[in-house]
Amino acid sequence: MSHTLGELAKRFGLEAVGNPATAIAGVCTLKPGKPGHLSFLANPRYRAALGATQAAAVVLSRGDAQGFSGNALVAADPYLAFARVAALFDGSLEFQPGRHPSAAVSAAATVPASAHVGAHAAIEDGVVLGEGVFVGPGCVLRTGARVGDGSRLEARVYIGAKVQIGKRARIQPGAVIGSRGFGLARGPQGWEEVPQLGTVVLGDDVEVGANTTVDRGAIEDTVLEDGVKLDNQIQIAHNVRIGKHTAVAACCGIAGSTRIGARCMIGGAVGIAGHLHIADDIVIMARSTVTKSLTAPGAYSGALPVAPAREWRRQVARLRRMHVLERRLAELERRLNITPQGASPEEGETSDDRDDT
Amino acid sequence: MSHTLGELAKRFGLEAVGNPATAIAGVCTLKPGKPGHLSFLANPRYRAALGATQAAAVVLSRGDAQGFSGNALVAADPYLAFARVAALFDGSLEFQPGRHPSAAVSAAATVPASAHVGAHAAIEDGVVLGEGVFVGPGCVLRTGARVGDGSRLEARVYIGAKVQIGKRARIQPGAVIGSRGFGLARGPQGWEEVPQLGTVVLGDDVEVGANTTVDRGAIEDTVLEDGVKLDNQIQIAHNVRIGKHTAVAACCGIAGSTRIGARCMIGGAVGIAGHLHIADDIVIMARSTVTKSLTAPGAYSGALPVAPAREWRRQVARLRRMHVLERRLAELERRLNITPQGASPEEGETSDDRDDT
Amino acid sequence: MSHTLGELAKRFGLEAVGNPATAIAGVCTLKPGKPGHLSFLANPRYRAALGATQAAAVVLSRGDAQGFSGNALVAADPYLAFARVAALFDGSLEFQPGRHPSAAVSAAATVPASAHVGAHAAIEDGVVLGEGVFVGPGCVLRTGARVGDGSRLEARVYIGAKVQIGKRARIQPGAVIGSRGFGLARGPQGWEEVPQLGTVVLGDDVEVGANTTVDRGAIEDTVLEDGVKLDNQIQIAHNVRIGKHTAVAACCGIAGSTRIGARCMIGGAVGIAGHLHIADDIVIMARSTVTKSLTAPGAYSGALPVAPAREWRRQVARLRRMHVLERRLAELERRLNITPQGASPEEGETSDDRDDT
Repeated sequence: MSHTLGELAKRFGLEAVGNPATAIAGVCTLKPGKPGHLSFLANPRYRAALGATQAAAVVLSRGDAQGFSGNALVAADPYLAFARVAALFDGSLEFQPGRHPSAAVSAAATVPASAHVGAHAAIEDGVVLGEGVFVGPGCVLRTGARVGDGSRLEARVYIGAKVQIGKRARIQPGAVIGSRGFGLARGPQGWEEVPQLGTVVLGDDVEVGANTTVDRGAIEDTVLEDGVKLDNQIQIAHNVRIGKHTAVAACCGIAGSTRIGARCMIGGAVGIAGHLHIADDIVIMARSTVTKSLTAPGAYSGALPVAPAREWRRQVARLRRMHVLERRLAELERRLNITPQGASPEEGETSDDRDDT
Repeated sequence: MSHTLGELAKRFGLEAVGNPATAIAGVCTLKPGKPGHLSFLANPRYRAALGATQAAAVVLSRGDAQGFSGNALVAADPYLAFARVAALFDGSLEFQPGRHPSAAVSAAATVPASAHVGAHAAIEDGVVLGEGVFVGPGCVLRTGARVGDGSRLEARVYIGAKVQIGKRARIQPGAVIGSRGFGLARGPQGWEEVPQLGTVVLGDDVEVGANTTVDRGAIEDTVLEDGVKLDNQIQIAHNVRIGKHTAVAACCGIAGSTRIGARCMIGGAVGIAGHLHIADDIVIMARSTVTKSLTAPGAYSGALPVAPAREWRRQVARLRRMHVLERRLAELERRLNITPQGASPEEGETSDDRDDT
Repeated sequence: MSHTLGELAKRFGLEAVGNPATAIAGVCTLKPGKPGHLSFLANPRYRAALGATQAAAVVLSRGDAQGFSGNALVAADPYLAFARVAALFDGSLEFQPGRHPSAAVSAAATVPASAHVGAHAAIEDGVVLGEGVFVGPGCVLRTGARVGDGSRLEARVYIGAKVQIGKRARIQPGAVIGSRGFGLARGPQGWEEVPQLGTVVLGDDVEVGANTTVDRGAIEDTVLEDGVKLDNQIQIAHNVRIGKHTAVAACCGIAGSTRIGARCMIGGAVGIAGHLHIADDIVIMARSTVTKSLTAPGAYSGALPVAPAREWRRQVARLRRMHVLERRLAELERRLNITPQGASPEEGETSDDRDDT
C-alpha cells in the first residue's frame, strides 16, 4: 500500500516537487513528522515546523513551497488535497459483502448481494438497502426504512420506521434517526402524547455523528438536505430542516420546527430555540444561544469566556447591580442638569421586555 | 382506516360543524393542508391560514369556529383533541406478541405471552415483564429489572439491574436507565469508585427520550415519578428525584441528589447543580444554569442571546471593565459630594462572594 | 453477606468504637439510617443527623466520633473508607466466565477462559481481551481492539478498530470509543471527509460514562491517561489528550486537539474549545466556556446563574445598553474636566476585539 510521490501527483492533479520516486507509505503530522510518510501544511502558524519535519514529503501551497527544499506536493488547497491522498491509506471503509449468520434480516426486506449486514443487525419488513450499503454490527432498521447506495451505518445505529437515507451517508455508532418527537399536550390527568406521524429524510452525502439523535416529524418530516454534516451528540428535534452543506459541531441542540439555511457553520454546544429561521451562510460560534431568527448573513457569538472563579463572582455581582449604577449615574446627571442622549433606562427596559417575551 | 367527521366527534366528545359524512383519512398541517385530512388550529398566530387550508376539516376552538365556513371539530382544547384523534392514525404502536428467535431470554425471567421481545434483545435472570410490554430489537434488561404493563422499550434500550419501570412507559432508542452513578472518592493513588448500590425507579406513564441517561442511586434510588416526560439526551445523575408530570426538554443535565417538584417545565439544555431543591410548578427557560434552590413558583431565565460576533466581543469587553465604570462613577460622586443610595460596590461584592461560594 | 464491625475495622485498617460484634448487612444513608446497616458522616453539614440515625454504625472522623455514643468506624477519610466498605456489599461486578451462545466471537480474536462475553456481543478479528474482562450484552469490539485485564464493558458499548483500553477500565452502557473524528475539508462540491487514521488509547483505571463518545484521532491518537474518569454524555473530539486522574463531569464537550493536564476537575456541561492547553490541577466550574488556554492552576468559573424571568430580561437589556452608560459617564467626566484612570472604553474595546478574534 505504498505509493510514489509522482503517482500521487498524477492521481490527484497536483504538482510534485523534488524526487518523484519518493515512496509514501502513509500520512503523518508535520511535527515531528515520520520518515516515509506524507504530511501537510495548511495553517501558516505551523510554517516554522516545515524545515525540521521528518516527513518524506509535504502537501503545501505554492507560496509555502517557495524556499522549501524537501519533497512536496503543491496544491491550491493543501488540506483538501491531503484529505484525498490520506483516504488512500484508510482501510477502514473496506468490507466483505454478505450477511453475518447472526443478523436478523426479514424476508420482506430488500438487501442486495453487494451489501454487508453485520453481526446482530436487525432489518425489518420492507427495508430497502441500496448497492454497497454497509450495515455494521448491532444496527436496527425498522419497518420500511430505506438506505441509499454506498451508505454506511457504522454500528449500533437505529433507523426508525420509514426513515429515508440518501446515498453515501456516514452514520456513526449510537446514532438514533427517527425517534419519537417530544410532542405532548396537556390533558386533565397530565401530559398526553401527540403522535409523531412524520419521519426523517436525509439527502445524499449526509454524516451523522456518534450518539446524535434526530427525531421524526409530528405531521411532516424532519429533513437534513444533501451534504449536511452533524458531529456527535447533537439533538435535532421534530420538524427541523437543515439546508445543504451546513455543518453542525458536537453537542448542539436544535429545537422543533426550526429551519436552518444552506452552508451554515454551527459551532459546538450551540442551542437554537424552536420555530426560528436561520438564513443561509450564517456562522454561529460555539456555545451560543439563539432565541430569535437570524436573517443577516455573518458570524454570531454569545458565549461568555471563563474567568478565575473569584473574578467571575465579582463580574456576576456587578452585573446584578448595574441598575444601581444606572441610578447613581442618573442622579449625577440630574444634579448637573444633563439630559443624557440615547434611550433612558426605563424606556429601554420596557421595550426590551416587550421584545423578549 | 378512514373515519367520518361525525364518528370522530362522537368518539372524542367533540362538536362536528359542517358535513358529518366528511371522510378523514389522516392528519395534516394547516398550511397548506391536505384534502381528505384533518388539521388543527391551536395557536392564534396561524389563524390567517385557516381560510386557505386544503384540509377536509379542522379541530379548533369555539371562538375560531366563528366565521369559519369549512368542516370543523369544535374542542375546548383543540391541540389535545387533535392529539387524541391523530392517535387513531398512528400504527407505530401495534405489534405481534411473541419472541423473536434471536432474542436471549433467561429461563428465570417472567415474560407473559402478551409481550413482544424483539430481535437480539437480552433479558436476564429475574426480569419481570408486565402484560403487553414491547421490548424492541437490541434492548438489554439486566438481572431483576421489572417493567410494568403496556410499557414500550423502543429499541436498543438499556435497563440496569433491579430497575423498576411502571406502566405505560415509553422509552426511546439508546436510552440508558440504571448506569453507574459517577461516585468517586479521592484515594492515595487516585480516584476510587464509590459503589452505586441503589437503582432507578420510574412511576407510571413516564417517557424517556433517545440517548437519555439515568444513573442508579448511590445508596437510595434515583426516582422519576408518575407522568414525568424526558426528552432526548438528558442526563439525570444519581439520587435525583423528579416529581409528577414534570417535563424536561432535550439536552438538560441534572446533577446528583437534586429534587425537582411536580408539574415543572424545564427548557432545553438547562443545567441544574447538585443537592438543590426546585419547588413545584417552576418553569425554567432553555439554556439556564441553576446553582441555587428555587423555592418561589414562577418562570426563571438565564441565557444570554446571541449577537453579531463583533458586537458580542464588545459586550464581553464592557462586562469585563464594569469595575472601571464603577470606579469612575465613584470618583464623580466624590467630587460632587454625593453619597450614593444602595449597597456600595465593596459591600455588594463581599456579600455575593460569600453567597456564591 | 453480613460482617461484624470488628471484622470491617480489621479488614480496612480502621478503628472500631462501640460493640465490635455489631452485625453489618449493608450500607444506608445517615438520615434516617437503617437498623443493621452502616452509614457515614463526611460533610460537617450533616452532623446534626448523627444523633438520630437508625444506622447500626457510622464511619466518621476522629473529631466527629467525639461525643458520639453509637457504634462507629473511625477513619482519616470517612468517605473513602465508606466507599471501600460499601464495595463488599456490591454484587454487581460478579460474573461467570464464559461466552453466551448468542455472542459472535471471531475465531481470530483472543478471548481467555477467564473472560465473560455476553449475549449478542460482537468481537471481530484480532481483538485481544485480557484476563477477567467482562464484555456485557450487546457490546461491539471492532477489528484489532485490545482490552486490558479486569476491564468491564458494561453493555451496548462500542469499541472501534485498534482502540486500546488499559486495565480495570469501567465503560458504561452506550459509550462509543473510537468513532470517526469530525474531520472535514471544504471541497468544490461541499464538505469532503478527512480520513481519521488514528485511534483511541486509554490508560489503566479509566472510567467512561454512559453514552459518552470519544472520537479517534485524525493522524495520531486521542488519549485518556491512567485514572481519567469521564461521566455520562461527554464528547471528546479527535486528538484530545487528558492527563492522569483528571475527572470530567457529565455533558462536557472538549473540542479537537485540546490537551488537559493531570488532576484537573471539570464540572458538568463545560465546553472547551479546540487546540487549547489546560494546565495540571485546574478546576473548572460547571457550565463554563473555555476559549483560551488556562495556564495558572486554580478554579475558573463562567456560568451566569438563573434569575426570575422578568428580572433576567432587564439584566440582558442593561448589558446591551452598557455602551450608553459609558457614553453618559464620559460626558459627565468631560463636563467636570476629569480624566478617568484605567483604559478608556475605546482602547479597551479595540484591544479586546483583537484579543478575541
